[in-house]
Amino acid sequence: MSFIDQLQEIVGSNGLLLGEEVSARPNASKGRGSCPAKAIVRPANTEELSAVMKLCHANDQPVVTHGGLTGTVDGITCAEGDVVVSLERMRSIQRVDAEAGVMVVEAGVVLENAQAAAKEAGWQLAVDFGARGSAQIGGMISTNAGGNSVVRYGMTREQVLGLEVVLADGTVISSMNEMLKNNTGYDLKHWFIGAEGTLGIVTRAVLRLRPQPKSVQTAFVALDSYDKVVTLLRRLGSDFEGKLSAYEVMWNNHYRLMVETLDKHQAFLPVDYPYYVLLEQESGHESKGEEHFMEVLSAVMEEELVTDAVIAQTSQQAAQLWEMRDDVGSIARHFKPLAAFDISMPLSEMEAYVERVTDTMADKLPEVGLVAFGHLGDGNLHILAGPAHEHRAIEEVVYGELVKIGGAVSAEHGIGLEKKDFLSYSRSEQEIALMKTIKQSLDPKQLLNPGKIFS
Amino acid sequence: MSFIDQLQEIVGSNGLLLGEEVSARPNASKGRGSCPAKAIVRPANTEELSAVMKLCHANDQPVVTHGGLTGTVDGITCAEGDVVVSLERMRSIQRVDAEAGVMVVEAGVVLENAQAAAKEAGWQLAVDFGARGSAQIGGMISTNAGGNSVVRYGMTREQVLGLEVVLADGTVISSMNEMLKNNTGYDLKHWFIGAEGTLGIVTRAVLRLRPQPKSVQTAFVALDSYDKVVTLLRRLGSDFEGKLSAYEVMWNNHYRLMVETLDKHQAFLPVDYPYYVLLEQESGHESKGEEHFMEVLSAVMEEELVTDAVIAQTSQQAAQLWEMRDDVGSIARHFKPLAAFDISMPLSEMEAYVERVTDTMADKLPEVGLVAFGHLGDGNLHILAGPAHEHRAIEEVVYGELVKIGGAVSAEHGIGLEKKDFLSYSRSEQEIALMKTIKQSLDPKQLLNPGKIFS
Repeated sequence: MSFIDQLQEIVGSNGLLLGEEVSARPNASKGRGSCPAKAIVRPANTEELSAVMKLCHANDQPVVTHGGLTGTVDGITCAEGDVVVSLERMRSIQRVDAEAGVMVVEAGVVLENAQAAAKEAGWQLAVDFGARGSAQIGGMISTNAGGNSVVRYGMTREQVLGLEVVLADGTVISSMNEMLKNNTGYDLKHWFIGAEGTLGIVTRAVLRLRPQPKSVQTAFVALDSYDKVVTLLRRLGSDFEGKLSAYEVMWNNHYRLMVETLDKHQAFLPVDYPYYVLLEQESGHESKGEEHFMEVLSAVMEEELVTDAVIAQTSQQAAQLWEMRDDVGSIARHFKPLAAFDISMPLSEMEAYVERVTDTMADKLPEVGLVAFGHLGDGNLHILAGPAHEHRAIEEVVYGELVKIGGAVSAEHGIGLEKKDFLSYSRSEQEIALMKTIKQSLDPKQLLNPGKIFS
Repeated sequence: MSFIDQLQEIVGSNGLLLGEEVSARPNASKGRGSCPAKAIVRPANTEELSAVMKLCHANDQPVVTHGGLTGTVDGITCAEGDVVVSLERMRSIQRVDAEAGVMVVEAGVVLENAQAAAKEAGWQLAVDFGARGSAQIGGMISTNAGGNSVVRYGMTREQVLGLEVVLADGTVISSMNEMLKNNTGYDLKHWFIGAEGTLGIVTRAVLRLRPQPKSVQTAFVALDSYDKVVTLLRRLGSDFEGKLSAYEVMWNNHYRLMVETLDKHQAFLPVDYPYYVLLEQESGHESKGEEHFMEVLSAVMEEELVTDAVIAQTSQQAAQLWEMRDDVGSIARHFKPLAAFDISMPLSEMEAYVERVTDTMADKLPEVGLVAFGHLGDGNLHILAGPAHEHRAIEEVVYGELVKIGGAVSAEHGIGLEKKDFLSYSRSEQEIALMKTIKQSLDPKQLLNPGKIFS
């Protein structure tokens, strides 16, 4: 029986896509043309996937796993002859335990659906980002996704209690722990979270849920120095008692671009302050949350830590502020072609870093403009630059300055193929060698998502 | 040059203990006699330890790492001929960054000293447990220690941002990340946290600090059913807005033993309720914290979720309540010899589990008494039983019922030698095989802490 026939026997005809059904699909989230795989296998459950991997392993068949195709670092691009495994048929929310605040989901569940199921049970799944309508839980875990809730709840890793994965040889590791505390030997789930599908294929997960907030307060404030931006972050971290749920900083160039140059968004504050912060508190109370929020903001204004401020009076106003913050699309059109960076560094380095990148860019690539903003609460900086006709030269500037201060070339997006050349900017030779040792021990035939992260 | 001379050359005479200086030390925290190692090596820094490990690796020399010797599962017991590495000379707090809220410490720093340094900088290190005056950071990380702050801040793992380890062959992996977000390849630190010194020796760490609370509220409440215990936990998790910092449940048998049978502690509440909870809120405010705490408690009493309650009016009263909760010594003397268990399970299973263990024990070992209590906020149950003349038979009852409900034989203490026989009660054959694969790839000569966790 041919390899394809054997695949078909495992997953049935509904589980296997061939020929035009394969090439009709994209090869990656970044538009690298149509999918060149020899087949797309869509297992219905873990057992089928295990059998598929046993077959692929016996045949030295490379496998790339597809989730919602919303990654940004070429993390799932495949080569001709690869087999794609798609988790799209494993989309069952198996259980929501409203007492314990945990949910058990298959890897193909779309984030938005998992969020909705948690909400219905009176909880929240504290991972959220723009691609929520397509991104799948398996991809979210495999990339240790960040997003909008990190400052309060941490990355995806901190929402995962248990995991089931299929290894390269088809072995099923079912480590579906539901307890907050479990020190029985190595905590295997951490090996697979953020490994970008190179060590195993996530099939199911136990997710930790968090209490739903009862009210949300939003403000947009201006500050006259970077030091004050850092001081305010620390102050709110303490005064909001752990309820600070967003601390999004915009450098002047970002805000000015959005409300003046592009004239796309309402100028809630004058455009000549050096720094702006969109900040948010999630409260467990309706009225008291707002009262407390106002008190803290009044205090920091009185102390001149904050120079100017606007408090969102309605959820619509809050939405307008967030739309401005999230409108990467307008920037992408303005800077076309765009070079986008997702990096992190110690907060104490960030002000000088942005200055150096701006100066070096002006010096070496004077035609390239840039704006800076980020989830500062997490040390995460985004730089958008363009026109990026010389993408590599821009990377050299941005990452070249980063390596000097021990920053990370990826804060939340991962490495994939896109940042592979720059992994050594953030990780030592010994660290990368150790990653390879582990890869070799778990996937000695190098079948899982080949070539991603490192070669 | 002899092996010992070579060691001496690396660490100097102050760095090497031999003969009586070795046998004067205990072999473990549980009194297994004197240390039978051929030498205790006390490197002054990472480079010395790296050289020591290169030498040991070349000589196939097994190595056991000692921290503060406060573990409870025979995790560092060594055999004759082993070399002990003690981190006791690496006790420098290298840096506290009061802006970012991170500290960089060597592994030999005693927890209490790290806590004090964090406090001095206006922050808290959110790991705390009874052995704080002896336990060292390296051991705390290698066992992923739990303790009193887990319900709010998570285990030790969640306080570690970066790590430096020395591998079995002497390779130094310096992964001293200081950022909250860093998705640049595999997050290596997680492989070593909780690995009980079997994969590498922790030499330095970057720890995440948390804001200091400004006030603490403590109450001791009685509830008339287990369902209400779980409902109250969820309610406070939401109403305290993430500031619930302790939720310690005592079964009736535990409270009654402490205040009636032993007559050791003041009876703040009558002894005939089925469940008691010692609960605590850490607040970022002086007065408001208390006001809010009282409001929430009044509401849950009005709704008859809580039947009876006493609020600590002074910090001395709070301390008395905690002394009762923490007075394991009195129980140990009462049950002498004592069998102590640290287990976890889904909250929905816990009531029936304790009943089954109580019944089975009465049936099989009628002379054995027991009490149940735990960090219920974390799903962590402690059972103390005795007289434990038949330790193994008691273990069979406690773990035998646990395996049926997918519980963990170790919630926070680890496996060591003590629980090794029971690892398979909580982890599957495939999981254990994967642990061994990883051990084999990182320490193929099986030199690091041999025989711990699994054989």
